[in-house]
Amino acid sequence: MYTIAVDCMGSDRGSVICVESIKTFLKRHSDCKIVAYGKKEELVELENLENVEIVDCSEVMSMTAGAIEAMRARNTSMYKSIVGVKDNGYDGVISAGGTAAFLTLATVKLKTIEGIDRAALVTLLPNQDGKLFTVLDVGANVETTSEQLVQFAQMGRIYSQKVLGVKEPKVYLLSNGAEDEKGSPEVKGANKLLREMNMPGFMGNIEGKEVVKGDQDVLVTGGYAGNIFLKTYEGVAKMMSNLIKRSFKKNLFTKIGYLFAKKGFDDLSAQMKNEKVGGAMLLGVNGVVVKSHGGSSTKDFTSAMEVIYQIVKADALNQIKEGVKENA
Amino acid sequence: MYTIAVDCMGSDRGSVICVESIKTFLKRHSDCKIVAYGKKEELVELENLENVEIVDCSEVMSMTAGAIEAMRARNTSMYKSIVGVKDNGYDGVISAGGTAAFLTLATVKLKTIEGIDRAALVTLLPNQDGKLFTVLDVGANVETTSEQLVQFAQMGRIYSQKVLGVKEPKVYLLSNGAEDEKGSPEVKGANKLLREMNMPGFMGNIEGKEVVKGDQDVLVTGGYAGNIFLKTYEGVAKMMSNLIKRSFKKNLFTKIGYLFAKKGFDDLSAQMKNEKVGGAMLLGVNGVVVKSHGGSSTKDFTSAMEVIYQIVKADALNQIKEGVKENA
Repeated sequence: MYTIAVDCMGSDRGSVICVESIKTFLKRHSDCKIVAYGKKEELVELENLENVEIVDCSEVMSMTAGAIEAMRARNTSMYKSIVGVKDNGYDGVISAGGTAAFLTLATVKLKTIEGIDRAALVTLLPNQDGKLFTVLDVGANVETTSEQLVQFAQMGRIYSQKVLGVKEPKVYLLSNGAEDEKGSPEVKGANKLLREMNMPGFMGNIEGKEVVKGDQDVLVTGGYAGNIFLKTYEGVAKMMSNLIKRSFKKNLFTKIGYLFAKKGFDDLSAQMKNEKVGGAMLLGVNGVVVKSHGGSSTKDFTSAMEVIYQIVKADALNQIKEGVKENA
Repeated sequence: MYTIAVDCMGSDRGSVICVESIKTFLKRHSDCKIVAYGKKEELVELENLENVEIVDCSEVMSMTAGAIEAMRARNTSMYKSIVGVKDNGYDGVISAGGTAAFLTLATVKLKTIEGIDRAALVTLLPNQDGKLFTVLDVGANVETTSEQLVQFAQMGRIYSQKVLGVKEPKVYLLSNGAEDEKGSPEVKGANKLLREMNMPGFMGNIEGKEVVKGDQDVLVTGGYAGNIFLKTYEGVAKMMSNLIKRSFKKNLFTKIGYLFAKKGFDDLSAQMKNEKVGGAMLLGVNGVVVKSHGGSSTKDFTSAMEVIYQIVKADALNQIKEGVKENA
């Protein structure tokens, strides 16, 4: 039996999103127990469900809370859900609340695992063939050393293997050029270290332009550049979708064209929406920590719950602990 | 009369691209003289043209030449064209050759202008409404200080005003969050400095996701993150175009849809191709330096020549020199 803590108060769209997701999730997975943190009166629908425990919380974490505010907000559902993992050994925790607060609390309360200096925020993105690849760090840290990038590479590789089932993941460092000597000092240093240790699957550097072609299974970057990479990737993809829609609305002929071409574009849309699957995971702390988008729909939040289930079931946390130890 | 030095040997597609471009360019601009650097036998078509001087060069700079190789390649057309600007005071120089070699030579030979520590590579990108904005640095430097980012902001602002004709350019720092306290240490420092000096038009930080919406006229970033931003922007835009084309080929109906919708998509294509206009400029050295893409077509190279013409005609270099002095 797996136990997952759910912060039910974080979503922009209210607790109903989380309540509905939990109901759907439990129908699918009888091997799971949910501990739901939130205002009791908003969670009544969960009261009589088997495998649900409700923890009444009087407060909601502010979406804009920084590190200090987060650490003080002890009565919030977010704070309590993370402490629940720490105190009770729950298998994982999920929230759609503010990223800064959630990352701070998860890192401070759960602590990084042995051999890992910093936790990394991980997400999955689709390449041009719709294949998902693993990117880390997309924003947990603004400064990263070469050694930390090596740790991210190791964690990303194990994640790709154990959770996504990629047998021999190809690991690349995001850089401003494909050659080994290209990059910021940290990236150059990480390249050198990874070459020296012969990390399995390490392929070298890759440029932002080549990433869409998708040879990489794992893309490793510092959090600052990683955040800019991710946001630009999502932003431009969205821009292009909007431009396509606008093109179709141009005149009567383009509107007729849309009716004929609709099927193809619906498939394209579905493929690009992959990027939203699962939100982001915080890798490197003593617990499985998943952050769903603040604006998640019930479908999105349910899908993020599926992600946490897969990670827990794959025993990814222990695999990463073991893997890091072996390489130390 | 303006004099522009053209390295005719850099293009992947051969000197014919540059020769054709020079012919077209001179038909349009009788106020310009071209000094064409290249193998004499490949430039015969230019021999009898008015306003063309040919400088015979026996060698071609290798596309992969690094800094040291570039500095030694004294007989190449690229080397000679840059030295030509230095020795003869030509107004500008353009090449489609290797970026690393060209940037090194331009920086070392022409030197940075007073008040500017480092030159920045500048390009224009279209936002979702097709409006072009100025981005710098997109890759001349892998490490940048806060003070250098401030200098980039100043140069970008003057460029936007004088060359693009934007009266009151809005200047943003690319960062991992919109708040002033978000960013790498350099970006945070630059934000603080720009606030303190009340730089006209400075709006604060902007995320990669918001850039496509295009409130910014000038986007300021260090070269490492800037390169990743630019390449991701171009890569994802290209990926989406390819996916659209693939969607249309799906079946008979989508193919019919394409025939109807074609006009709308041709406009979209044209709009996105804006990104290729002009290649990139190196701002901050004593000379107008434009780098055209290695794979430039005649149309692309001609358009890059138009860019250099506009910059020269706007007297942008002196405007930047004056502007930087005023703010010092």
